Amino acid sequence: MPTTFAADSVGLVTPQAIEFTQPLALACGRTLDQYTLMVETYGELNADASNAILICHALSGHHHVAGYYEGDTKPGWWDSAIGPGKPIDTNRFFVVGLNNLGGCHGSSGPNQIDPKTGKPYGPDFPLMTVKDWVESQARLADYLGIQQWAAVIGGSLGGMQALQWSITYPDRLRHCMVIAAAPKLSAQNIAFNEVARQAISKDPQFHDGRYYDVGEVPKTGLMLARMVGHITYLSDDGMREKFGREMKEGKLRFDFNPQFEVESYLQYQGERFSTAFDANTYLLMTKALDYYDPASEFNDDLSLALQQATAKFMLIAFTTDWRFSPERSREILDALVDAGKDVSYAEVDSPQGHDAFLIPIPRYMEIFRAYMERIAADIPPSTQEKGNAS
Amino acid sequence: MPTTFAADSVGLVTPQAIEFTQPLALACGRTLDQYTLMVETYGELNADASNAILICHALSGHHHVAGYYEGDTKPGWWDSAIGPGKPIDTNRFFVVGLNNLGGCHGSSGPNQIDPKTGKPYGPDFPLMTVKDWVESQARLADYLGIQQWAAVIGGSLGGMQALQWSITYPDRLRHCMVIAAAPKLSAQNIAFNEVARQAISKDPQFHDGRYYDVGEVPKTGLMLARMVGHITYLSDDGMREKFGREMKEGKLRFDFNPQFEVESYLQYQGERFSTAFDANTYLLMTKALDYYDPASEFNDDLSLALQQATAKFMLIAFTTDWRFSPERSREILDALVDAGKDVSYAEVDSPQGHDAFLIPIPRYMEIFRAYMERIAADIPPSTQEKGNAS
Repeated sequence: MPTTFAADSVGLVTPQAIEFTQPLALACGRTLDQYTLMVETYGELNADASNAILICHALSGHHHVAGYYEGDTKPGWWDSAIGPGKPIDTNRFFVVGLNNLGGCHGSSGPNQIDPKTGKPYGPDFPLMTVKDWVESQARLADYLGIQQWAAVIGGSLGGMQALQWSITYPDRLRHCMVIAAAPKLSAQNIAFNEVARQAISKDPQFHDGRYYDVGEVPKTGLMLARMVGHITYLSDDGMREKFGREMKEGKLRFDFNPQFEVESYLQYQGERFSTAFDANTYLLMTKALDYYDPASEFNDDLSLALQQATAKFMLIAFTTDWRFSPERSREILDALVDAGKDVSYAEVDSPQGHDAFLIPIPRYMEIFRAYMERIAADIPPSTQEKGNAS
Repeated sequence: MPTTFAADSVGLVTPQAIEFTQPLALACGRTLDQYTLMVETYGELNADASNAILICHALSGHHHVAGYYEGDTKPGWWDSAIGPGKPIDTNRFFVVGLNNLGGCHGSSGPNQIDPKTGKPYGPDFPLMTVKDWVESQARLADYLGIQQWAAVIGGSLGGMQALQWSITYPDRLRHCMVIAAAPKLSAQNIAFNEVARQAISKDPQFHDGRYYDVGEVPKTGLMLARMVGHITYLSDDGMREKFGREMKEGKLRFDFNPQFEVESYLQYQGERFSTAFDANTYLLMTKALDYYDPASEFNDDLSLALQQATAKFMLIAFTTDWRFSPERSREILDALVDAGKDVSYAEVDSPQGHDAFLIPIPRYMEIFRAYMERIAADIPPSTQEKGNAS
């Protein structure tokens, strides 16, 4: 943790665990009778709760979006975009981050204790869908006294949640920002997820998901899953720029150990992840990705699915993102245009592939900042005065 | 096996094991004192051995390139291109296929007995490079009495061998056909290979490569390696066309089993491969791919590396191939043009990704056939008469 915080940092933050006791019926047919959401907020909610922004996280994200925990040297995962004076300006907005249900950072999920059994849920935790998450986030909004979000914002799987908000609760958000996302996974996306799932579930230390009971972790499976994932987050060009064919020891060795920089990097990333993330959560998150397909209930017509939306939309894609390429964002764009919605679209030139959505690329941040001005302008004027006066 | 063979099939074929006793010094610094190559030939060598075509195989290929084995229902891996009247016309050409050293189909390799120990080589089999293979193939040419190949032809890793032939033995081939290849792997290519290697080597049944001794096979590792590989052989578009989001049971189930067609397909491919291919060979083949970089000895100037080549070149790439994209073939093209060589280049429009090079796509086969006419025309006339008269 820095000894002093930068002027544009939200500084020291503390998460809170919020208990929900109203049963939540899930898409899979099961019900969570009670559950916990880990939540973090930055900035202040104005008097009529009209300046709230919900941040939805992607596959391996969580509620710690910005700022620092006591003793930490690294800030939250989207600290570059959130803080006083940053694109999501905490002087103006009240920002809410949460760990989704099924996650592994304190919200109810496979690695948490099932109150009914006193043991970790493990593989018995129900499968979640994007719609279920939106429902749980709506309950969180109720709890926080937020009737309508100024904006729901998310990248990748987080973007899918933002999109779903506009369909399920059209009246509860004024703006919807969908970054580096897709309206559904392609066969190739699903295929990569399935490789990750097979790697985890066939790891002998997975024990059918009950590895908590035996004090083991399917490290190899999670490492492989992360390695595959990581390749799909980077671009071919970006990897060429970053690693090329650089060798660890400057010249070829003839053995089976990694000798190119890119191999060591991936192994390091994979190994770090394998002890920091929960395997059951990884399975659940990839399944939620696979399942998402809002058009499926609307005769496979995404435009029809979005007909009921009333939010204004901002879509952002990155040129070298091949996990969710700009083409995929344009599918959403086309559907919104067909449905006659208010939509803006920006394609940001960047070599960083899918990962770009987390990186403060200058042009991206400019676009982000400009759109946040629109969101701020749409906060009802009376409210703004009230907020300023309070 | 068909009861009768099509007129354009080479029909029933038999491989032969050829023993070599002259020691082969390898790039890794070690020497193979003696070795076996499994070889298959189709058509007849003409009197002055000027109509011979060498087929170099890719990662999981072998000597059984065309025709049928007794009892088999499926022909060799490139049967679509080789036979009487087919693009590589066995009425005109003498076609040679071999299993490369380090392979697992009968040539000396990890799964074969090391004559020095009486046990399988396993991980003690030396690492091979494309150059080593070219050297072993040159010895095979000597054995067969072939001073100069009419053409050396290969796809993918096989294309790299064809390219290397033109550099190492410029006088020993008249034509060089490099299909769906690249002059070296990109960081992304290496990364995918490393995922496969980690999956295999971290499988508890790998036993440091000595799994033969305990009667086990690293099935899961090989399955994962193949699944990842397979995704990179297909194109995003091709997978969309072939599988889309089709579900096995027509509707969503909420469990962790595969439910999309693409998942089942990949699992099937992976499982089939895991019992049919040798894990040590897979490691070795991917390392040979990683190592290949003919420009590295020429100040990273591919054009300089190819300066000594005298063959005529035909390069073919496929539009949706993202493992070795057309851009990669054009790197070879540009280097050959810069070096003032005789080179033709064709980019074939196809949705099948990298796999396209094995598929008899009509336009591809037309181009192939047309170029084979050029190769036939370059067989010295006196020889052709002699050949026809013999």
